[in-house]
Amino acid sequence: MYPFLRPEQYKVKQPTDKYPSRISDKPVMIDRDDPVVYGKWHKESSLSEEQSAFYEKNGYLFLDQFFSPDEIIEWRQELRRLQKLYEQREAEYVIREPGGSDVRSIFAVHENNELFKQLSANPRLTAIVNHLLGSDTYIHQSRINFKPGFTGKEFYWHSDFETWHVEDGMPSMRALSCSIALEDNFHFNGPLMVVPGSHKKFVSCVGKTPDNHFKQSLRRQEYGVPDPDSLTKLVKHGGIDTIVGSAGSIVLFDCNIIHGSNSNITPLPRSNVFLVYNSVENTLTEPYSGQKPRPDYIAARSIR
Amino acid sequence: MYPFLRPEQYKVKQPTDKYPSRISDKPVMIDRDDPVVYGKWHKESSLSEEQSAFYEKNGYLFLDQFFSPDEIIEWRQELRRLQKLYEQREAEYVIREPGGSDVRSIFAVHENNELFKQLSANPRLTAIVNHLLGSDTYIHQSRINFKPGFTGKEFYWHSDFETWHVEDGMPSMRALSCSIALEDNFHFNGPLMVVPGSHKKFVSCVGKTPDNHFKQSLRRQEYGVPDPDSLTKLVKHGGIDTIVGSAGSIVLFDCNIIHGSNSNITPLPRSNVFLVYNSVENTLTEPYSGQKPRPDYIAARSIR
Repeated sequence: MYPFLRPEQYKVKQPTDKYPSRISDKPVMIDRDDPVVYGKWHKESSLSEEQSAFYEKNGYLFLDQFFSPDEIIEWRQELRRLQKLYEQREAEYVIREPGGSDVRSIFAVHENNELFKQLSANPRLTAIVNHLLGSDTYIHQSRINFKPGFTGKEFYWHSDFETWHVEDGMPSMRALSCSIALEDNFHFNGPLMVVPGSHKKFVSCVGKTPDNHFKQSLRRQEYGVPDPDSLTKLVKHGGIDTIVGSAGSIVLFDCNIIHGSNSNITPLPRSNVFLVYNSVENTLTEPYSGQKPRPDYIAARSIR
Repeated sequence: MYPFLRPEQYKVKQPTDKYPSRISDKPVMIDRDDPVVYGKWHKESSLSEEQSAFYEKNGYLFLDQFFSPDEIIEWRQELRRLQKLYEQREAEYVIREPGGSDVRSIFAVHENNELFKQLSANPRLTAIVNHLLGSDTYIHQSRINFKPGFTGKEFYWHSDFETWHVEDGMPSMRALSCSIALEDNFHFNGPLMVVPGSHKKFVSCVGKTPDNHFKQSLRRQEYGVPDPDSLTKLVKHGGIDTIVGSAGSIVLFDCNIIHGSNSNITPLPRSNVFLVYNSVENTLTEPYSGQKPRPDYIAARSIR
């Protein structure tokens, strides 16, 4: 269904590598060479001037109760249905928990599922996204994430852009993620944590990516991981914000912000819909690693 | 230094087993058959009437800034010194992280270390403890815990009493723990979580304890673990409280309250001193499992 592409399909010449990573033995911090908010704010913008400025400065924006309880119920039912379905059924776009068989994520839901396709095109949402990225946009990646109760594992700190750049060939920082909470997020059930301001630095990571790294990395990341010293510096500077709020809230965050989450031993599961929007002016080129790109269900290689 | 005891040293006849556990295939919830606060409150008591009532109802009490910053600095320096010392040196009372060699806990610090011995006898602290337990008390167990930054692992939900009863032979619920924060505790660096009210139910756990279980269980618990259904019921009833506060704060909690903590991927370590006080009228008998008791550095078998 999502075969690997042939070289002629992904060998799109890439611009100069502004953000080299996984090529040196020493981690380096590089200043961001791209805007954060690409759209010029005006009175008809989809965000207030304060919201736009907050996103620029901190790299994220939390919008409480963006979706209504009715909308959420429908998506949550669909998510439960898919979780049950894929407990038994194998599919390459279904990722399981490390060391177990529980479903952790289902990818490409904006293509495979009518409800989530509609959600990804929600006009209130895309108006905000298009303002922040200053152009039309398309879905680079989508997934639903399950963080089960009792055994939900942590996601270690990372910048999404680091991976999308090195492994997928995304040239510039002109993409963002939107996470839609389908369950209430508390401090104690492994909510998203971000390092405000970290999106303005690029942490070049050490080591070389092994071939077909993605099969492992979606379960547990080992390459493209920021080093402890850089993380400590970024946290000393910006602190840590924890994103908590009721089901229906959303958080938009820049592709380069450092984020992660702790484990969840509580009985309260945490699940969300995760949509990544990329600017149509920032489509993928050859991966900067020089390796084969990841499959299309993880990183869309054409605008559809 | 802490040899296993010979049978004649621990074969103290035990009272009837009010709280059977690890003997059935099915988990059971039993009502608590012991008081929570044993001391009668009066105007000269070491706690206010409200504090005493809060502890009785919820099973824990948080006291912010109980110790001064100066006291904390001294203990933190000592903790750092011990952590460094035992990085290299082996000792049976030093427990390391699962799957690693980082020091997780050092036991029996109230005996092996002059500073922590003094701390365990702090008059302001023991006045409160003796009020709650309604008698003189002694240290049943002490340790310092390190929850390192980046890689701090979770502690799964458990009741301490379940283990102390089954593996150590503690007859009744007449003990409590005091955790002294040596670092600031935030929502995001894996703080203690408790289930308020859960101390009034005893969750009888399934399975039989293997011999010498403690060697593994101090790193990762596998027996004496409450089942998901009982946990869900208790959380539905009492919720989850997260104990956060600055260094120097303390939390006292009943031996039977269900508690645990999530992982800590943040750069901010979390360490504490952990003191367990038992009533002199509740000294250990033969373990209710019928097995050999755990060594003295984990569970003091005599009042010293």
